[in-house]
Amino acid sequence: MNKNKQSFTLGSIASRFDLKLKGDSNLHVSSVASLQNATTGQLSFLSNSKFIQHLKNTSASVVILNEEQSSNYDSDCLIADDPYVSYAQVATLFESPARHYAGHHPQATIHETAQVDSSASIDAGVVIGPDCVIGPGCIIGAGSVIGHSCTLDKQSTLQANVTLYPNVQLGKRVIIHSGAVLGADGFGLAYNKDHWIKVPQLGRVIIGDDCEIGANTTIDRGALDDTILEEGVRLDNLIQVAHGVYIGAHTVVAGCTGISGSVKIGKYCMIGGGVGFSGHFSVTDHVTVTGMSLVSSSINTPGVYSSGTALSSNADWRKNAARFRQLDKMHKRMIQMEKEIKKLKEEPFNQK
Amino acid sequence: MNKNKQSFTLGSIASRFDLKLKGDSNLHVSSVASLQNATTGQLSFLSNSKFIQHLKNTSASVVILNEEQSSNYDSDCLIADDPYVSYAQVATLFESPARHYAGHHPQATIHETAQVDSSASIDAGVVIGPDCVIGPGCIIGAGSVIGHSCTLDKQSTLQANVTLYPNVQLGKRVIIHSGAVLGADGFGLAYNKDHWIKVPQLGRVIIGDDCEIGANTTIDRGALDDTILEEGVRLDNLIQVAHGVYIGAHTVVAGCTGISGSVKIGKYCMIGGGVGFSGHFSVTDHVTVTGMSLVSSSINTPGVYSSGTALSSNADWRKNAARFRQLDKMHKRMIQMEKEIKKLKEEPFNQK
Amino acid sequence: MNKNKQSFTLGSIASRFDLKLKGDSNLHVSSVASLQNATTGQLSFLSNSKFIQHLKNTSASVVILNEEQSSNYDSDCLIADDPYVSYAQVATLFESPARHYAGHHPQATIHETAQVDSSASIDAGVVIGPDCVIGPGCIIGAGSVIGHSCTLDKQSTLQANVTLYPNVQLGKRVIIHSGAVLGADGFGLAYNKDHWIKVPQLGRVIIGDDCEIGANTTIDRGALDDTILEEGVRLDNLIQVAHGVYIGAHTVVAGCTGISGSVKIGKYCMIGGGVGFSGHFSVTDHVTVTGMSLVSSSINTPGVYSSGTALSSNADWRKNAARFRQLDKMHKRMIQMEKEIKKLKEEPFNQK
Repeated sequence: MNKNKQSFTLGSIASRFDLKLKGDSNLHVSSVASLQNATTGQLSFLSNSKFIQHLKNTSASVVILNEEQSSNYDSDCLIADDPYVSYAQVATLFESPARHYAGHHPQATIHETAQVDSSASIDAGVVIGPDCVIGPGCIIGAGSVIGHSCTLDKQSTLQANVTLYPNVQLGKRVIIHSGAVLGADGFGLAYNKDHWIKVPQLGRVIIGDDCEIGANTTIDRGALDDTILEEGVRLDNLIQVAHGVYIGAHTVVAGCTGISGSVKIGKYCMIGGGVGFSGHFSVTDHVTVTGMSLVSSSINTPGVYSSGTALSSNADWRKNAARFRQLDKMHKRMIQMEKEIKKLKEEPFNQK
Repeated sequence: MNKNKQSFTLGSIASRFDLKLKGDSNLHVSSVASLQNATTGQLSFLSNSKFIQHLKNTSASVVILNEEQSSNYDSDCLIADDPYVSYAQVATLFESPARHYAGHHPQATIHETAQVDSSASIDAGVVIGPDCVIGPGCIIGAGSVIGHSCTLDKQSTLQANVTLYPNVQLGKRVIIHSGAVLGADGFGLAYNKDHWIKVPQLGRVIIGDDCEIGANTTIDRGALDDTILEEGVRLDNLIQVAHGVYIGAHTVVAGCTGISGSVKIGKYCMIGGGVGFSGHFSVTDHVTVTGMSLVSSSINTPGVYSSGTALSSNADWRKNAARFRQLDKMHKRMIQMEKEIKKLKEEPFNQK
Repeated sequence: MNKNKQSFTLGSIASRFDLKLKGDSNLHVSSVASLQNATTGQLSFLSNSKFIQHLKNTSASVVILNEEQSSNYDSDCLIADDPYVSYAQVATLFESPARHYAGHHPQATIHETAQVDSSASIDAGVVIGPDCVIGPGCIIGAGSVIGHSCTLDKQSTLQANVTLYPNVQLGKRVIIHSGAVLGADGFGLAYNKDHWIKVPQLGRVIIGDDCEIGANTTIDRGALDDTILEEGVRLDNLIQVAHGVYIGAHTVVAGCTGISGSVKIGKYCMIGGGVGFSGHFSVTDHVTVTGMSLVSSSINTPGVYSSGTALSSNADWRKNAARFRQLDKMHKRMIQMEKEIKKLKEEPFNQK
């Protein structure tokens, strides 16, 4: 990782982030590292007790721990209610300052009807279409293209090579990573005798405040109703969000997941990687779906859901997968056996 | 959705799209909406009888219905053989007019040997390589890059930030969405003692008339033979089409599907989202594969195919998935039980 | 495929690539094709004995065969230890020469602090940030964006529209295909009372010599430790590599696979398409995972691994998938039956 030259005393960190310090308040740290890799001058943290063995041997100058862990730790530590949350906050000190182009790059192409705030950073190769509004503090990375009539509220960021189709609306502090495409036509087709015709896609994409959209993720515009992400939704990379999907606030979705048209997902859901949503249905709040599951109907009860099978050696898998295709027949044979056993038990002498 | 200021009378819609009108031919509509969300002045449709309850309460000014549905509907309606097809046609009235850059933008880089029709729209940041031919009415969105020797027949569209490698051939009225990459090298590797060497990829990508390719979808060039999509193929977003794949006319593929090298898919197939094709084989015409299935050998009979397992609570799933790994052993135990039951039935007195 | 005008005699090919020639050393070939499609003047090869029937009928002027196959082949052939490896080498003769922009295009934007070797090819629309180092012979395709402090060692290629975030390090002869995004923030979130906060992502992406990264693939920067690909790793298209992943030398990964944060994959592994790695764990060297499998814990033994179920007709699948959800109950019923059969066998007269 990058080492930043600026350093901070433990005392200043404790007071700034409201942490309890056990140790030397004048000790300096200048970067962060994992427990295993940390060396002198680095800050680390323990958030998962499964890694507690690394704590004993760490060379970190200071570790963020919870109260209980700190009582068994003899060296300098910062005590937090939730060490991972506090780590996330403290680590912002060690981020390299962003180095965005200051101002509007002469190699950017900004339509004369677009309103771009003077405090926005517009890098080379950016193309901004007619009637766009780019708010204060926005950062538009090199090569990004913004279609007509898009609105970016304040402090939103498009990294390099992002594409917004026309009429995309972003809230405040939204981050869109490179290669993401928002507002493309949904996959709407009607079958007319012997070929498919395109169903006009007329909705918009609306992204709430504090959402983050991963690299190469795609979010299609609605067919009729808009495609909407409420505030605080976090999408990882390479996710497909089809037309008319609605995702509730603070839901997080891991990479490679696909969500089919008009699916409604609730608030505070956690969707694993490679999950498929197939059909038009709703998922209630506080639902967790584990990686690579297929969701094909509504989920009305909060909880954890899964599908698929677990990994085996290919030799075993081949045998078991072959039996999977006979499973209903196996079940029928089982019912038959149960009947016969019952008969044998009831009338053992009447056989033959 | 966007409301368009232009409005149309029901009479003019009926005559233009050859629909039967039941109601007031002078009534105006100016936009479209779903049955649930429609208000006065909006047109809606009912294509799936499962949503018929929304028909009773809709505030839409007019609804496109089939003959049977219309007989139970007391308000204004347009009667169609296939309401969804007619909706798709009527809704084109309400699309916002495209606002493409007219002409060849001064910030585009067009090689001197490229032949770009004067009626083509070439936006800022476009790069067109040597020996390309861009036909009449083509639209090339901002930031798109076209390698040398590509041909776009008339009225084809590349949205913003599309990449065509050299030698890609597009037919008429093709639409390629943003972030799509056509013509990258296929994944061809030969293992040479202790490392992989790259197998030269020498084929092209050829896309037929009226195909549509979704955002961030990738279609690799052939290794030897070309990668070919026949006319009318529709690919959704984030699909991988490997080298030498051949997709028959009017086949549609939903998002996140991957198709391995040299697979041949027939005409009029419907491939669900997240499907994997793994191996070198053929799929006949009129095959449907449901979402997230794995296709690993040829399909020779039209029909609907599936694999995978259905969603359960994680607690149930863990138990069942553990048993899946014992399935072949369960089958063996079952055979043993069947034998023993048979023996018990035949010779109940000879036990022990 | 493209036919190249240059032709080569069989004699020159044999001597250049150290192959044994059986036939006319003065015969010319000018392109390559598959056995089925080859015509006079073309070179072909047989690498998989399953296609041996095509050998009899091929019109290729010469075929690369192994010793054994050549003994049954009466026409001109080149004899190789591994025909596919030799084909890969010979076919390089027939690649169209790359036609990259020579020099630094005036429409490229290169920061004054970037060091770009004079022999590097920088196409139109490229943006290179501060403090980058671009080595000799590198090729940067049109529209690619390179963030500050990236290093490309010699002869590396970014195809068009690639995005490198800051601090990405590429080795020698690395190829990155269009739309790939390296160095985006990993998906690191900490849950703070009622919302997620972003965990600063501070690591880098480091790519070894001779790696190739497919189109629209994403490789996130590490959270703390770097994300690392050792030399010779080959990634296909649309792959997600999360923060802190480590992939050993000469491992190959097929398209649409997702690898979750901090997973460590060994050397010489072969990962199929659409595979999901979910969790934080290690996979040893020489592991093969078949397409669309879910890997959710460490693999410590080399071998071939799989999960999932095989394709059936949808009608059969529905029945079997329903039984899958009863599998643990079926197992319990089976145990019960086994007990009862045992009892019946032991005490057939005591029933009732």
